[in-house]
Amino acid sequence: MTDVLPSWRPGATRDALVGFFDAAHDIPPSDRVAVFDNDGTLWCEKPAYPQLSFYVHELADAAQRDADLASRPEYDALLRRDGARIAELGVPRIASALLELFVGLSPEEYSRRARRYFAEAAHPTLARPLRSTVYQPMLELINALRAHDFSVFIVSGGGVEFVRSISLDLYGVPPEGVVGSMIAYEQRTVDGAPALVRSATLDGPANEGIAKVHAIQQHLGRRPILAAGNSPGDREMIEWAVASTGPTLGLLIDHDDDVREMAYESVAGTFHSDERIVDVGRAAGWVVASMRHDWEAVFPS
Amino acid sequence: MTDVLPSWRPGATRDALVGFFDAAHDIPPSDRVAVFDNDGTLWCEKPAYPQLSFYVHELADAAQRDADLASRPEYDALLRRDGARIAELGVPRIASALLELFVGLSPEEYSRRARRYFAEAAHPTLARPLRSTVYQPMLELINALRAHDFSVFIVSGGGVEFVRSISLDLYGVPPEGVVGSMIAYEQRTVDGAPALVRSATLDGPANEGIAKVHAIQQHLGRRPILAAGNSPGDREMIEWAVASTGPTLGLLIDHDDDVREMAYESVAGTFHSDERIVDVGRAAGWVVASMRHDWEAVFPS
Repeated sequence: MTDVLPSWRPGATRDALVGFFDAAHDIPPSDRVAVFDNDGTLWCEKPAYPQLSFYVHELADAAQRDADLASRPEYDALLRRDGARIAELGVPRIASALLELFVGLSPEEYSRRARRYFAEAAHPTLARPLRSTVYQPMLELINALRAHDFSVFIVSGGGVEFVRSISLDLYGVPPEGVVGSMIAYEQRTVDGAPALVRSATLDGPANEGIAKVHAIQQHLGRRPILAAGNSPGDREMIEWAVASTGPTLGLLIDHDDDVREMAYESVAGTFHSDERIVDVGRAAGWVVASMRHDWEAVFPS
Repeated sequence: MTDVLPSWRPGATRDALVGFFDAAHDIPPSDRVAVFDNDGTLWCEKPAYPQLSFYVHELADAAQRDADLASRPEYDALLRRDGARIAELGVPRIASALLELFVGLSPEEYSRRARRYFAEAAHPTLARPLRSTVYQPMLELINALRAHDFSVFIVSGGGVEFVRSISLDLYGVPPEGVVGSMIAYEQRTVDGAPALVRSATLDGPANEGIAKVHAIQQHLGRRPILAAGNSPGDREMIEWAVASTGPTLGLLIDHDDDVREMAYESVAGTFHSDERIVDVGRAAGWVVASMRHDWEAVFPS
């Protein structure tokens, strides 16, 4: 096992992963289900969510073609990267304005734009392409899970079509294996056939907290026995997984490496707790992976 | 190709399937997506939907333990198989009463009951186990699609957890590959962890008509280029698939074999049309498979 996890340093964390694989041998393959949060768990989410970077890139692109766009306060603040003004306008207004950029697009066209962005985008500070800010140790963990007949899914707070546009390339997870926040589609009739186009509103709740548990059941149909995350929005999903019968594993990524990535405390998705998620996890017996101490490499070489 | 479709007789229908496989060679594998309705398309739906048979079986079981159940008009009519009284009470009341039998169950317990039923249930008239009333030619088609790197999904009007409970065994489709009508789950907290239990109401619309198109996008995330069905409730899904660019195939199963199965016209899901779905399909250039003429075998031997 340890030679398939070369980027995990020897120690208690790697021992816990290896021990879980050993224990999983007694579980029927159809019950070997692992779910992973994406932002901050499988790839770098700082200084901005990649989805936000994509949206701002598309905004800048659109503003070059249509100068009037910058007269809208939300777009003006985003284009100037004016953090104070963005905060003043508030997340709901900013998010809604960004979603409006894609209204009327088919899902296929939206995915094409996301893939085009990913083909060229660079991370703003890490001096590497955005698509290679995935965490090498987590890719190895996913591969090891598959080698042990696990089904591996992504359960993200991000937009489901955004994550699907790169999930197969980056993680080997096909679109149907990705759950995320869903945009509402409007139905049109084009040449006598149904067509779906994006609206600017969500279809259901943002995929955080207990919504992740519901979405896993409704969209994937199996209860996970391994759940990995990094933020309070992953708490219920992990609690649900580790309350399964038989061997289970809850895994948290602790962003404590200010040299190779960034050191920060994840607060995404928390509106109900001032506890630190790593403290919650340690108290509950989950495995907390320290990027600084447990990972020999952070990103693919 | 023809030796992997041995239960399809030579002729225009089999030629159309073989021609589609040839044309699909130019399509990227990630775009090779096929969706199948279940009731009447992959398995026999007469004289009653297997899900209804399961529910009535569970009702009879519960009534043996609790004689008071039979005092409820809906249950009394179902236990007596009193078709006139059932029609008089109406589908919504009957359906709601049946769903109430499972309120409070976890998804896992519901699936266990469905699997237990399928392990022993016999079809009421066909003199074979219910689990072998799947259509042999369709199993061959699914296998041929997989051999051509298609992803194969089930998009049913039936309850998603019911279909998932047997989809891997019968069709090789894992739970995440099944889309269907969804029950709403209530969230409980059990021993400090989230738990989901069934309610008696649907979460969203019944999965028929345009709802199938929305659900495919939201849950599977890829537009199909092959869609197969047998009823008006499959119309929009097929129209959506065949309006894709590149080679597509719309496939309808015509239940015209009163010797080996039953001859009937599918009206499920239609609330807006008095056209026959096979006439709609023929006019649109879809392939209409005659069970009587195109299938050498109907069920597995």
